[in-house]
Amino acid sequence: MTIQRIGIMTGGGDCPGLNPVIRGAVLKARSLGWEVLGIEDATNGLIDLDYRSPKGNRWLGPDDVRGIISKGGTILGTSNKSDPFNYVVTVDGVKKEIDVSDRVIANYHKLKLDGLISIGGDGSMRIAQKLIDKGMNIIGVPKTIDQDIGCTDYTFGFNTAVQTATDAIDRLHDTAESHDRIMVVELMGRNAGWITLHAALAGAAHVCLIPEIPYRIEPILEKILERQARGNPYSIIAIAEGAHPVAGTQSTEGPRALGQMPRLLGAGHRLAATLEPHLEMEVRVVVLGHLQRGGTPTQFDRILGTRFGSAAVEAMRIGKWGHMVALRTPDIVLVPIADAIAEPHFVPPNHSLVRAARDVGIGFGDDEPR
Amino acid sequence: MTIQRIGIMTGGGDCPGLNPVIRGAVLKARSLGWEVLGIEDATNGLIDLDYRSPKGNRWLGPDDVRGIISKGGTILGTSNKSDPFNYVVTVDGVKKEIDVSDRVIANYHKLKLDGLISIGGDGSMRIAQKLIDKGMNIIGVPKTIDQDIGCTDYTFGFNTAVQTATDAIDRLHDTAESHDRIMVVELMGRNAGWITLHAALAGAAHVCLIPEIPYRIEPILEKILERQARGNPYSIIAIAEGAHPVAGTQSTEGPRALGQMPRLLGAGHRLAATLEPHLEMEVRVVVLGHLQRGGTPTQFDRILGTRFGSAAVEAMRIGKWGHMVALRTPDIVLVPIADAIAEPHFVPPNHSLVRAARDVGIGFGDDEPR
Amino acid sequence: MTIQRIGIMTGGGDCPGLNPVIRGAVLKARSLGWEVLGIEDATNGLIDLDYRSPKGNRWLGPDDVRGIISKGGTILGTSNKSDPFNYVVTVDGVKKEIDVSDRVIANYHKLKLDGLISIGGDGSMRIAQKLIDKGMNIIGVPKTIDQDIGCTDYTFGFNTAVQTATDAIDRLHDTAESHDRIMVVELMGRNAGWITLHAALAGAAHVCLIPEIPYRIEPILEKILERQARGNPYSIIAIAEGAHPVAGTQSTEGPRALGQMPRLLGAGHRLAATLEPHLEMEVRVVVLGHLQRGGTPTQFDRILGTRFGSAAVEAMRIGKWGHMVALRTPDIVLVPIADAIAEPHFVPPNHSLVRAARDVGIGFGDDEPR
Amino acid sequence: MTIQRIGIMTGGGDCPGLNPVIRGAVLKARSLGWEVLGIEDATNGLIDLDYRSPKGNRWLGPDDVRGIISKGGTILGTSNKSDPFNYVVTVDGVKKEIDVSDRVIANYHKLKLDGLISIGGDGSMRIAQKLIDKGMNIIGVPKTIDQDIGCTDYTFGFNTAVQTATDAIDRLHDTAESHDRIMVVELMGRNAGWITLHAALAGAAHVCLIPEIPYRIEPILEKILERQARGNPYSIIAIAEGAHPVAGTQSTEGPRALGQMPRLLGAGHRLAATLEPHLEMEVRVVVLGHLQRGGTPTQFDRILGTRFGSAAVEAMRIGKWGHMVALRTPDIVLVPIADAIAEPHFVPPNHSLVRAARDVGIGFGDDEPR
Repeated sequence: MTIQRIGIMTGGGDCPGLNPVIRGAVLKARSLGWEVLGIEDATNGLIDLDYRSPKGNRWLGPDDVRGIISKGGTILGTSNKSDPFNYVVTVDGVKKEIDVSDRVIANYHKLKLDGLISIGGDGSMRIAQKLIDKGMNIIGVPKTIDQDIGCTDYTFGFNTAVQTATDAIDRLHDTAESHDRIMVVELMGRNAGWITLHAALAGAAHVCLIPEIPYRIEPILEKILERQARGNPYSIIAIAEGAHPVAGTQSTEGPRALGQMPRLLGAGHRLAATLEPHLEMEVRVVVLGHLQRGGTPTQFDRILGTRFGSAAVEAMRIGKWGHMVALRTPDIVLVPIADAIAEPHFVPPNHSLVRAARDVGIGFGDDEPR
Repeated sequence: MTIQRIGIMTGGGDCPGLNPVIRGAVLKARSLGWEVLGIEDATNGLIDLDYRSPKGNRWLGPDDVRGIISKGGTILGTSNKSDPFNYVVTVDGVKKEIDVSDRVIANYHKLKLDGLISIGGDGSMRIAQKLIDKGMNIIGVPKTIDQDIGCTDYTFGFNTAVQTATDAIDRLHDTAESHDRIMVVELMGRNAGWITLHAALAGAAHVCLIPEIPYRIEPILEKILERQARGNPYSIIAIAEGAHPVAGTQSTEGPRALGQMPRLLGAGHRLAATLEPHLEMEVRVVVLGHLQRGGTPTQFDRILGTRFGSAAVEAMRIGKWGHMVALRTPDIVLVPIADAIAEPHFVPPNHSLVRAARDVGIGFGDDEPR
Repeated sequence: MTIQRIGIMTGGGDCPGLNPVIRGAVLKARSLGWEVLGIEDATNGLIDLDYRSPKGNRWLGPDDVRGIISKGGTILGTSNKSDPFNYVVTVDGVKKEIDVSDRVIANYHKLKLDGLISIGGDGSMRIAQKLIDKGMNIIGVPKTIDQDIGCTDYTFGFNTAVQTATDAIDRLHDTAESHDRIMVVELMGRNAGWITLHAALAGAAHVCLIPEIPYRIEPILEKILERQARGNPYSIIAIAEGAHPVAGTQSTEGPRALGQMPRLLGAGHRLAATLEPHLEMEVRVVVLGHLQRGGTPTQFDRILGTRFGSAAVEAMRIGKWGHMVALRTPDIVLVPIADAIAEPHFVPPNHSLVRAARDVGIGFGDDEPR
Repeated sequence: MTIQRIGIMTGGGDCPGLNPVIRGAVLKARSLGWEVLGIEDATNGLIDLDYRSPKGNRWLGPDDVRGIISKGGTILGTSNKSDPFNYVVTVDGVKKEIDVSDRVIANYHKLKLDGLISIGGDGSMRIAQKLIDKGMNIIGVPKTIDQDIGCTDYTFGFNTAVQTATDAIDRLHDTAESHDRIMVVELMGRNAGWITLHAALAGAAHVCLIPEIPYRIEPILEKILERQARGNPYSIIAIAEGAHPVAGTQSTEGPRALGQMPRLLGAGHRLAATLEPHLEMEVRVVVLGHLQRGGTPTQFDRILGTRFGSAAVEAMRIGKWGHMVALRTPDIVLVPIADAIAEPHFVPPNHSLVRAARDVGIGFGDDEPR
């Protein structure tokens, strides 16, 4: 099969490195003489060819990707609401989900695309697999800021997010030490603690709480008081947004304050409310939130993104449809999308990084001897 | 009077530039042959000469201040709870406030200090004035991250805080554009909107809400929709923690969601809850919080801090007790502490920066024609 | 006079903050309903209306200036070779200078411009004045990274350049201390030492050499050896590219090595070659060069640039032709261009910043007692 | 063998991440109850137990390594002149090299060290191997900013250096575009082009010249002119300090200018002098130099350093003397020092990163079709 025209789109949450992927793919594809159509806002641009928010689908050449390697975000836009198999429409004032995947297939052919690069996370890859099963030619590029995908050493965006988190912890050290305070910093990671684990190590946090290791309050308090006893009346606690106490333990610690706090308050604020009654020290919380998704990509993510984009085009050239690019240091390899989405990649509690963290005295809120 | 020994202390909230002030004062004083005693945790080290948290009072020379110009925080520690005129003690399990100012005076003499440099904010300056009235020799150095003191063009820390806030807004642009979202970023400023005003201008925010200009929801919604209509389906709103709606207006906008949100939720989350029901777009909130107080000081704050520290020692040498150093660009001048604390420095609603912001299209949530 | 259309151009060396000025002017002018023509590569776009390098003159609206506040450089391009009164052309293989100013005037009228904003340095302002004298309506915006213009507290770009230089000195401290080395860092400033003076203060350099204070080698060696004797076997020397020894002194210090070094080697390398034979320590040189002209502008320069751009349009609106915007903290004021270019602004050897630097132990290579 | 006391030292050129290694080793060793002696300035502290420059050997505990994870340089000092097998001494005014390795062995025993962690590059590892052969217990930690060691995926410091170089290239883009210039940036790498290759990819340079691929001038000129023809009248050239033209080619290009330039001028300036006569455009050179060795380590290097330090202690615990820690993503492994130093790790001309770079249009100054 001779390729003449491909599409490229970005889906799911924002992530530093999307633009380098787009740039890498466009430059490589154009050097092969292919046309590249940028699809707007994930599948939205395929569901509705007249979709404009703000720009709509458009041709991409070297001029369109100049300078974007250093920019966060994605020039193509992205969306969390564009699953063609469960597309939300409002009929007679009522929201309901319908299957518009046939429309996507039809538009794909109408646009005369010979293949599509889908850059996205777990959700996007599942959609891609279903579209592949219906006959579309797709190459996947894995995108997850949380690094919770198992078939690649690193995903782009993760390195930048950990750097952002580390810079933030560096700042909090200054104030924690000056004020003899407990600083709680809540980082991204609903189910996977990779960002928090890395940032805790790099930022020299004293406690690291991740979803994979449920915590108890006592070991955290012990760590804080032990530090105080040795002349360090301050501590930094890094907590993933998905970290949680061992079932049934936290409610006994600070029941009332907690009971009145709404869902809106995340893991960091809940932990602080639980800790504060037990301490003489002030506890302050910083929720890093979306700051971790923006910013210029680090060199590592720019290179990884560029390689992923370029390798995706190469995978198209050799017809490896249904595969996803991945990093097996130092090589870029191809793995079947179906394998990649089979099981998410969480932090094994005895992972070498967890042990390294314990080695330098970081507590995980559990009873593990350090 | 010949000076042989001085004390120096830092009080109030953490602020980038405290260490440069300490360094500037120590190096200048030591070059004059004076001894310099660093007082721990604001007045605490004078209230109790055995105070240790963690280090206690200590002599400072060039070796002790080497390398600190680039460090946030304060090597002397600081405290918000050390007012000797209202010192909190626990007697028979009950907290009460007592006046320990005589003890401070006695310890000051016991330490054979010829003068004291007090680096602090409004509160610290009021305490300093009362100690001066009781006979102590004090020179003040103004410290407020909020820039809410009128007698100086700039206070140190402000420049760094605005830079931190601007960097954060830069990051949020990436995600806001990629996702067609409204991003609300809450910045410091209980009563003064200087940080938010500057960061909104430098970060190219679209709406700037400050305590000095109460806002209404309608003009904010109009600005967002007007932007959307022109093909920019995203907006950045910078809001000071002390910003608030015009009395009585917000509760009619999004009553129920708001009514259930506790005090803990700040201005940013409250605004988002009010806006979201009126918009199709997602609204996300980032509260920058303590990140604004940490980090290596900018060159501007390092230089200003160094000059303030050095000038405070010079003021001692010429006996200008009861004065505070201040910047009248490009000079460092001395002003009576009593004058400095007379009236805080808020953003006048017709300030030239507010007009500059309106000129580039920034809305303030009021009805002012731009 | 009613303004309907204005031009805007940037001239001279690159400087962070040019884009914020352009953005500020465009947004303000468009809000007044004016058309704004961006002129390419300084006067080049007026000398030749077909000039393309790469883009040529073009209309500017809000979409064209979106996102540029955080970008270094200038979207309009700039040039050091576009003086219409001494325009270099090649005739019969011979380069010669001709006066094309009448062509500029003619094109200005052909484009139906009612006024022109000229953003540039000393050279650009002199050209502007001559064009004003020939009847053009011009408002000036001062641009000099060196801060060597007297009528404004600060020019944009300077703050960013000093920050870049300070960051570099911070890095060199690490290596200087680890290796017990002398690190010489050469900074911008042909005739004015402002960047070097500020960066030396902010970066805690030990020696600061600027054009305004000719240096001798002996005091520098003394400072280095005195530091070594006190247990600090390393030193950082900040030197402006235009710094030079007291007439007749350096050649006696390291004659031969120096005699063989070509013009290409700047002040830093020449100083190192002179110092090294006198020291046991290694001397290393870093020339920061063009790194000081690039990079995202600091918040300070973004705000100053935005205000300058907006104020230049306001100056047009009220007909203050022949004036230049300037900062008199905290206000933006207008000064006649003729006054502004009358005398450059060098560092007075007894300037308060020089004294502040001496106060913290920085040597200037002269005999001044610290 | 039961370990009670170990030594640790850093040798060779400065490199971001040395302090994290020291910290990781000290925290882990102290948690095992071992004493840790920091050796000053590489082997110097073992050659002469009274060595002080400035501090001399000293015991290290948690307080000594607090906060150093974010600091560049090494708290132990380092040296390029401390090979005990070829130690330079001055006898009767004449410098000569002697073997003081027996003194090192004797002092090692005198200090009652049970083992030594030697953090250093190729040279340090060769010395370590010779000391091991004479009976010392040593574990190696590889340190090379150039990444030119084959047995580990990454060495610490490399990630930071590439980030520094990428940030610099980002800045140069601004000015290159504004001025239509050729910017040449010379990066570290005498024999290995890894830093330049990575930074060229991440910084979107247009030409990448490395020692492993000798360049010719013609393909570089072609690339520049081809870019100009497509409307991009500027280019960025990243060149490693060890890059060189194909033998015999450059001298014919710009003979005279080149002949007069001394050794002092590096690869970047030599290239510029050769290019400039062939171009209408200005060529500017920036030599990044020692800036690449300083600065706070990136999170990646902090984590890698911490793991290396901790793993080196673990290697001691299990008695793997003569081994070196290494990264085989994601694990830390041990390899015999003898193997590690057997052959350096240069860029294979057909390396996947080189191909990735060609894919996005980067030229290498050779005739390879892109």
